Amino acid sequence: MKYENLAMLCDFYELTMSNGYFKNGFYKKNVYFDVFFRKVPDNGGFAIAAGLEQVIEYIKDLHFNDDDIAYLKSKGIFDVQFLDYLKNFKFSGDIYAVPEGTTIFPNEPILTVRAPAIEAQLIETFVLLTLNHQTLIATKANRIVRAAQGRTVLEFGSRRAQGASGAVDGARAAFIGGCKGTACTLTDEIYGVPAGGTMAHSWIQMFDSEYDAFKTYCELYPDNPTLLVDTYNTLKSGIPNAIKVFKEVLLPKGKTEFSIRLDSGDISYLSKKARKMLDDAGLENCKITASNSLDEYLIRDLMMQGAKIDIFGVGERLITSKSSPVFGGVYKLVAVESEGGEIVPKIKVSENTAKITNPHFKKVYRYYDNESGKAIADELCVYDETVDDTKPRTIFDPNATWKTKTITDYSAKELLVTIFKNGKCVYESPSINEIADYCRKQTGLLWDEVKRFENPHTYYVDLSKKLYDIKSILLNVYK
Amino acid sequence: MKYENLAMLCDFYELTMSNGYFKNGFYKKNVYFDVFFRKVPDNGGFAIAAGLEQVIEYIKDLHFNDDDIAYLKSKGIFDVQFLDYLKNFKFSGDIYAVPEGTTIFPNEPILTVRAPAIEAQLIETFVLLTLNHQTLIATKANRIVRAAQGRTVLEFGSRRAQGASGAVDGARAAFIGGCKGTACTLTDEIYGVPAGGTMAHSWIQMFDSEYDAFKTYCELYPDNPTLLVDTYNTLKSGIPNAIKVFKEVLLPKGKTEFSIRLDSGDISYLSKKARKMLDDAGLENCKITASNSLDEYLIRDLMMQGAKIDIFGVGERLITSKSSPVFGGVYKLVAVESEGGEIVPKIKVSENTAKITNPHFKKVYRYYDNESGKAIADELCVYDETVDDTKPRTIFDPNATWKTKTITDYSAKELLVTIFKNGKCVYESPSINEIADYCRKQTGLLWDEVKRFENPHTYYVDLSKKLYDIKSILLNVYK
Repeated sequence: MKYENLAMLCDFYELTMSNGYFKNGFYKKNVYFDVFFRKVPDNGGFAIAAGLEQVIEYIKDLHFNDDDIAYLKSKGIFDVQFLDYLKNFKFSGDIYAVPEGTTIFPNEPILTVRAPAIEAQLIETFVLLTLNHQTLIATKANRIVRAAQGRTVLEFGSRRAQGASGAVDGARAAFIGGCKGTACTLTDEIYGVPAGGTMAHSWIQMFDSEYDAFKTYCELYPDNPTLLVDTYNTLKSGIPNAIKVFKEVLLPKGKTEFSIRLDSGDISYLSKKARKMLDDAGLENCKITASNSLDEYLIRDLMMQGAKIDIFGVGERLITSKSSPVFGGVYKLVAVESEGGEIVPKIKVSENTAKITNPHFKKVYRYYDNESGKAIADELCVYDETVDDTKPRTIFDPNATWKTKTITDYSAKELLVTIFKNGKCVYESPSINEIADYCRKQTGLLWDEVKRFENPHTYYVDLSKKLYDIKSILLNVYK
Repeated sequence: MKYENLAMLCDFYELTMSNGYFKNGFYKKNVYFDVFFRKVPDNGGFAIAAGLEQVIEYIKDLHFNDDDIAYLKSKGIFDVQFLDYLKNFKFSGDIYAVPEGTTIFPNEPILTVRAPAIEAQLIETFVLLTLNHQTLIATKANRIVRAAQGRTVLEFGSRRAQGASGAVDGARAAFIGGCKGTACTLTDEIYGVPAGGTMAHSWIQMFDSEYDAFKTYCELYPDNPTLLVDTYNTLKSGIPNAIKVFKEVLLPKGKTEFSIRLDSGDISYLSKKARKMLDDAGLENCKITASNSLDEYLIRDLMMQGAKIDIFGVGERLITSKSSPVFGGVYKLVAVESEGGEIVPKIKVSENTAKITNPHFKKVYRYYDNESGKAIADELCVYDETVDDTKPRTIFDPNATWKTKTITDYSAKELLVTIFKNGKCVYESPSINEIADYCRKQTGLLWDEVKRFENPHTYYVDLSKKLYDIKSILLNVYK
């Protein structure tokens, strides 16, 4: 579980291909790979980029140790000189990426690698799985947080996560997407995401009575305790006992922050009943937390039903993105450098037209309307193009080129920033709070039409004329 | 990503509760927790237990280091003596579990912990997430392998996994469930699951022509290479080039094991066309591998359509169990020991009757029909009951007690084996090949009716009369 060296977290073909590149001299050839995705999970209108910080740590630490080399040698298919090369392996290339918390859209590069062929190839799996995983969870968390309309959402799902990093890094991504905290202690210790928690049913069962269990807990933790009220009977036992203990233990100490948690039954009905019981007891300040297999759809329904819930604890459906558990980011070769340093665009054609790639080393511009401040469109350009946003610009849909739009009074901003240059990290990772804050601002720049759950507006991701023409020429070569 | 100490991979409430148990002396009290689940993913008839070996490693290594203690101290809510206690923390209890690869059913304990309250509580999250994750993937893999009816299934999903352990441990679980190998190198290095792989589209794009790319690959790896044929055009370019290279490079060397891989387009149609082209070229021995978002349903359909596929490469839909990505194992208090050592059963009642637990420290018996060898039913008994399988036994459905069945000519086998005794591991983990082999034998002991995908027969998991009566009494107390 505690893997010594993540360099070996690669697909075996990356090693066999690299061995091949080594033997035929390709390993000195600089190549360009893009990470991009084709479809937003849950048919949403956008995704939230996350995971870059863990990619950076991985690249910095990238090396093969003696055990790894011995393991590879035992396979009997790798060249001795290639294994020697791996012993001194270090990433020496460039990486460009969108900062974490950025809103991202299908078919645009979210990370681009320029590196000698072997280096670029060997990092494929780890880069993909890290960005895919955290982007998936940040995107899901953001949906759930939007459904909660300002109520607090907490991440509670560790026990149902798909493995240790699913839990720990997933909770990090959930915080980026808008959750206010996690139940996962390690995520707090490592990443600084605030961890908190209430109690398990077992706490209550350990005592002779529910009342004793609540009383002991409030005496121990008088600052904002949450009592779980459904162990025996929510309305007949749990809430009355909670009210009694709040009044007996907390109010005399001047403590007025506390809450109850509903974890089973009809949450909407119980929350209204609970609210009334608490209010009737003069505990209008007592908050109500709800959990039990919640997601954005159930929370939206609870809100519509007028459920009296202040805090949502969301577990398995967030930490696995249950309704759409795969983020399909891919890693595709888009260009190679000739010996003279010329950048030669490459394309991957496919029987499935959706799998055709956008070739070349690219820039991504995002255009903002100066009046509303909202994002209008993204445009993929060739690396040597520069957009002058003081001039009107005509963009067009690459799948329907007659659909054009001329934008004026806009600001252009490049999305990809330089992370590594010649193997050196030149990017300072923001704090987790800064990333979460940036994400909140980023989603604020999208029109509501892009953010709705059903049939969101498809945000424009266009190609520049120059890039479109290059792609057309390459497609004709392989048609 | 490389977490120093997995002890901190716990829900924060486990620490606050433990602090509470410490302060009121409960920490010396022995308690019993069961891990069990309520529903088989994908509405299947059974699950495959996996993940125990990683639980064992975690328990053996369980400790809190200085950084962890400093972090906890900074929270300002933990007792100094409790933190001192954690410094010397070591698991001292007993653990019973079903071996990995065992077929398991809802509502029966698959792992039972007997330990002082704090120890039992602190391991909750890690034990659950590990068993939940690996059991999920082993169960999914077994479905996919069953759909493939004897064809080889390989796990290819690392890049779409939910984090690093999702990939690495997921590939281990997939092997237990019946996959024959993985693309994940680290899973081979750590766990001995055979890793292999073909090539990426980027390999082909790196060369001036597809032919050159195939030729170079076969010269480098003449032993059983697989050529990816869909980079440009599967039928017009990929397969003709592959045939040419097999004939020019491999046959003259006497190499007759090789294959092609289809990764896009209509796999059924293309596989039949490919088979004919290969056969017409005299390459009847060439195998056909197929990939592209496959799962058990698509594979079942491909088989029905007579697709000519020998090997299935399965990625994202296996490694995330996409159609059912949560295994809902829970960890529930079932008994506590009194000071006199008496085991007092405990129950958790709930508004949702499905969430009511089976109380007490239990044994699980599995009954096999002596004639067919097949498993007939499981029975949960109180720890001090012993079943004599030389005598007829009447079992009954706990949800419909009038449904009884008397079994004769059967063998009774206990499912839970002792893993830890007084904190010492007394179990020798089998090799990964032994586990996979055991799993294959275990599924062979189930009737086909339990194994079908649609509306499988519900396997009997019954309660002994003694256990049923204890549960009834406890339910009446809290009704």
